[in-house]
Amino acid sequence: MTTHPSPQLWLYDTTLRDGTQREGLSVSIEDKLRIARRLDQLGIPFIEGGWPGANPKDVQFFWQLQEDPLKQAEIVTFCSTRRPNTNAADEPMLQAILTAGTRWVTVFGKSWDLHVTEGLKTTLAENLAMIRDTVEYLRSQGRQVIYDAEHWFDGYKHNPDYALQTLAAAMASGAEWLVLCDTNGGTLPHEVGQVVESVISHVSLVNGPQQMPQIGIHTHNDSDTAVANALAAVMAGAKMVQGTINGYGERCGNANLCSLVPNLQLKLGYSCITEHQLNQLTEASRFVSEVVNLAPDEHAPFVGRSAFAHKGGIHVSAVERNPLTYEHIQPEQVGNRRRIVISEQSGLSNVLAKARTFGIELDKQTPAARQILHRLKELESEGYQFEAAEASFALLMYEALGGRQQFFEVKGFQVHCDLVEGKETNNALATVKVGVSGKNILEAAEGNGPVAALDAALRKALVNFYPQIATFELTDYKVRILDGHAGTAAKTRVLVESGNGSQRWTTVGVSPNILAASYQAVVEGLEYGLLLHAQAEVAVESSR
Amino acid sequence: MTTHPSPQLWLYDTTLRDGTQREGLSVSIEDKLRIARRLDQLGIPFIEGGWPGANPKDVQFFWQLQEDPLKQAEIVTFCSTRRPNTNAADEPMLQAILTAGTRWVTVFGKSWDLHVTEGLKTTLAENLAMIRDTVEYLRSQGRQVIYDAEHWFDGYKHNPDYALQTLAAAMASGAEWLVLCDTNGGTLPHEVGQVVESVISHVSLVNGPQQMPQIGIHTHNDSDTAVANALAAVMAGAKMVQGTINGYGERCGNANLCSLVPNLQLKLGYSCITEHQLNQLTEASRFVSEVVNLAPDEHAPFVGRSAFAHKGGIHVSAVERNPLTYEHIQPEQVGNRRRIVISEQSGLSNVLAKARTFGIELDKQTPAARQILHRLKELESEGYQFEAAEASFALLMYEALGGRQQFFEVKGFQVHCDLVEGKETNNALATVKVGVSGKNILEAAEGNGPVAALDAALRKALVNFYPQIATFELTDYKVRILDGHAGTAAKTRVLVESGNGSQRWTTVGVSPNILAASYQAVVEGLEYGLLLHAQAEVAVESSR
Repeated sequence: MTTHPSPQLWLYDTTLRDGTQREGLSVSIEDKLRIARRLDQLGIPFIEGGWPGANPKDVQFFWQLQEDPLKQAEIVTFCSTRRPNTNAADEPMLQAILTAGTRWVTVFGKSWDLHVTEGLKTTLAENLAMIRDTVEYLRSQGRQVIYDAEHWFDGYKHNPDYALQTLAAAMASGAEWLVLCDTNGGTLPHEVGQVVESVISHVSLVNGPQQMPQIGIHTHNDSDTAVANALAAVMAGAKMVQGTINGYGERCGNANLCSLVPNLQLKLGYSCITEHQLNQLTEASRFVSEVVNLAPDEHAPFVGRSAFAHKGGIHVSAVERNPLTYEHIQPEQVGNRRRIVISEQSGLSNVLAKARTFGIELDKQTPAARQILHRLKELESEGYQFEAAEASFALLMYEALGGRQQFFEVKGFQVHCDLVEGKETNNALATVKVGVSGKNILEAAEGNGPVAALDAALRKALVNFYPQIATFELTDYKVRILDGHAGTAAKTRVLVESGNGSQRWTTVGVSPNILAASYQAVVEGLEYGLLLHAQAEVAVESSR
Repeated sequence: MTTHPSPQLWLYDTTLRDGTQREGLSVSIEDKLRIARRLDQLGIPFIEGGWPGANPKDVQFFWQLQEDPLKQAEIVTFCSTRRPNTNAADEPMLQAILTAGTRWVTVFGKSWDLHVTEGLKTTLAENLAMIRDTVEYLRSQGRQVIYDAEHWFDGYKHNPDYALQTLAAAMASGAEWLVLCDTNGGTLPHEVGQVVESVISHVSLVNGPQQMPQIGIHTHNDSDTAVANALAAVMAGAKMVQGTINGYGERCGNANLCSLVPNLQLKLGYSCITEHQLNQLTEASRFVSEVVNLAPDEHAPFVGRSAFAHKGGIHVSAVERNPLTYEHIQPEQVGNRRRIVISEQSGLSNVLAKARTFGIELDKQTPAARQILHRLKELESEGYQFEAAEASFALLMYEALGGRQQFFEVKGFQVHCDLVEGKETNNALATVKVGVSGKNILEAAEGNGPVAALDAALRKALVNFYPQIATFELTDYKVRILDGHAGTAAKTRVLVESGNGSQRWTTVGVSPNILAASYQAVVEGLEYGLLLHAQAEVAVESSR
């Protein structure tokens, strides 16, 4: 509530690099691009995209971003210092970095003498030269450099003089940011605060406070204090905060930006992203978890489904009378919402806002609005989720508004798989029955797996009536087991992304039978595609 | 490594009360007793068992513990102060507390003036009387009292004078501990430290340092800083730390004792439990998650399966040479272990290290070692992933070494699904053919979905030959579509977790046919279970 401008901090997201080190997380180039664009939209100023010298997939990722750049964020490449006893200019790894064509490069180097002599097996002097040469070379090629001081806190504890020499080397050769990394994640907040403070006073003594590079912080969660460590560093003067969406990362993860940003902005009064962008935090968190296909953590601070859940009658009415005495922030500030666990709590404004994104203006008073909300709640309790499946949500909305055009009617399907060990092609046969233009169509098709066979049979049945189906394609297919601990009896949620060459849309299906869930999502994918086609024709008609 | 005795802290576990507030967690009396005994064994001095006045199940729980008491821990009952304008002695709730027969009682009261006037709808003076009367009455009945100051930090910020009066009331009437609770979880570590410090100086001024009750801390994770908050309180002088196993609790959970205890003991030099008890921490964490039937968090600090996982060849050999430069503590100190992750970047040293964790010493020169690596790379390029599927990796290794016992032979399967719109139960029929003991067994079963039917048929076929299969269960099932953009023609990777009541293991299957991939993982899950059983029998034999 101050009228002074809030002090600015720079967020640096490393979901696409350090985040992907998490065991069990793997992403395609397409996934990485989708995430990068979402983070750009969220207002993150620095997005680390990967290490193009080490990973061929990352090379393509940066090329694609050269073709179609981000709106506001700097996409950053990541690499190590040159190898011992080489020339920076001759390092293929650094050439790959230059080819990636980013303005900013993050270079990581060793701070801990033991890692230099035992890990790199080189001399302490050569390590300093490696840092200097690499940063200098990149600067000479017009790049701006962020220097990540790996194992900083352990190195500094072990040999502060040498650690500070590594920072001095990066500074002298023109790095604009010095980022102190708690690579092993073992440092506690009070130590982080002390070390950052003493580094800042040392660096400003050497360079003069005007000339000094800014300090950043990169923490890991091995001590369960990654967020608190980053906060301690900021309070000691760090200006850049590195972390990942949902805290994804190696071992126990990185500092979670979804917790850091609201703490920094709503509690400590720093400025990171706009208020409006902060309102999208929960959605961004869930979007990323969908894309990397990991179940969202329902108990995650700020953005988890349970983060603002309330139980019990008296408590609930007290919350409703005076929420701020029972909630540490307003859930809407981070795009989350209060949930009353027993009684259903209305999210009508969400529905209205969402309808608006489909060009439909609904009024709070319209019965259809309440009906959509009701149906939404019902389906969500069955395991449906519409965060990523907006096409299914649109169909649901058109249904409530009485405008869902019925292109065809699904009557049932049969699938038969016959697998003899060692023979794995065209082992599935699907039969579908659909009603279209008053006729029942029965059609069969084979496939290399039951879902492929179902998809093929359905297209065969419909293409004579709707030739445009020939241009549709299934572009992505994701399966999530709900309540995995129920084993093979668990419910399955399937997300299907379809495309028609110019647009893409996602639909959802839920069932204990994985084939039924898949079929449902495939069917809605075709239906929504036909709807888009029909809307486009109407638009052409009316413009004549 | 100091020779001074470490300062003592008192741990207070509230898994059985506050922990059970977590959405989706529910426990029977039997579950609660099992957990209480495990915590007793772990050396926790105070175990909060429940609120017998509010919950009839809790009454029985305390009776059972009167019959068969814990070895070292104090079991603690929990209750509120008396209601406004009543007599403590006439409160049925307090009579239930006395009947529970514990030496210690935790009483919680309001610290925040707003909660008194708006929530309890009584006067500030009456709230002080409620605290005083309740504590005094319980003391008069021979009980020792821990006073939980609910909403302490928010109350103190809002009206410090009144908040301190509530503590004074509890002190004056004989409470032995004053516990400061961050009930909404919104406070950050630096504030917690400051407030605890000023409370301690205030209280010692009033009472004299000799006479003063001890201070405790109770934190929630809404700001993602519950552990750091508790550490800050301890460093400011708090002597009791409240938390739950695995951080279970309402909304975003309570302070996680599995993180707090190693931080306090291994990093800050406090004494909480014995070294030997600390060695059982990982086991205790997993035991509790088994009993409450929640999947353990693989990325949990200290006790998670990934907490000491290492990827990448050079890195791995460096870790083995000098673990403490890559790990913040020794995993064995908390009963966890280092894991070498088998991934795309794996080299021979990873394979050798991994084999060692299965008790197999391989030499770099052994042809089998290269063969395993080769097979691994081959399977990985087909989409297999062994990071999480350690049981499948073990089978692959035994195969290369010529020691893979063939319990049964898979010959093929058929699956038939027949789904008429609107009818969704037992819609799948599976037939399997397996060779076992020289015979071909053909068996069929139905299921609510094709994978459930396959699993059922396979068990039916094998249980007569291997009765131990009846104790196996599928505990988790995950599906990942590889190259999702290939749509329904994409490859599918299935991970299946199986258990036998005491152990869990994960297997993997890959195929363009989702049913074939699932079948493969289910089959390997059964095979590995049989292998464990056989190994256990050999161990029993040889110990005779």
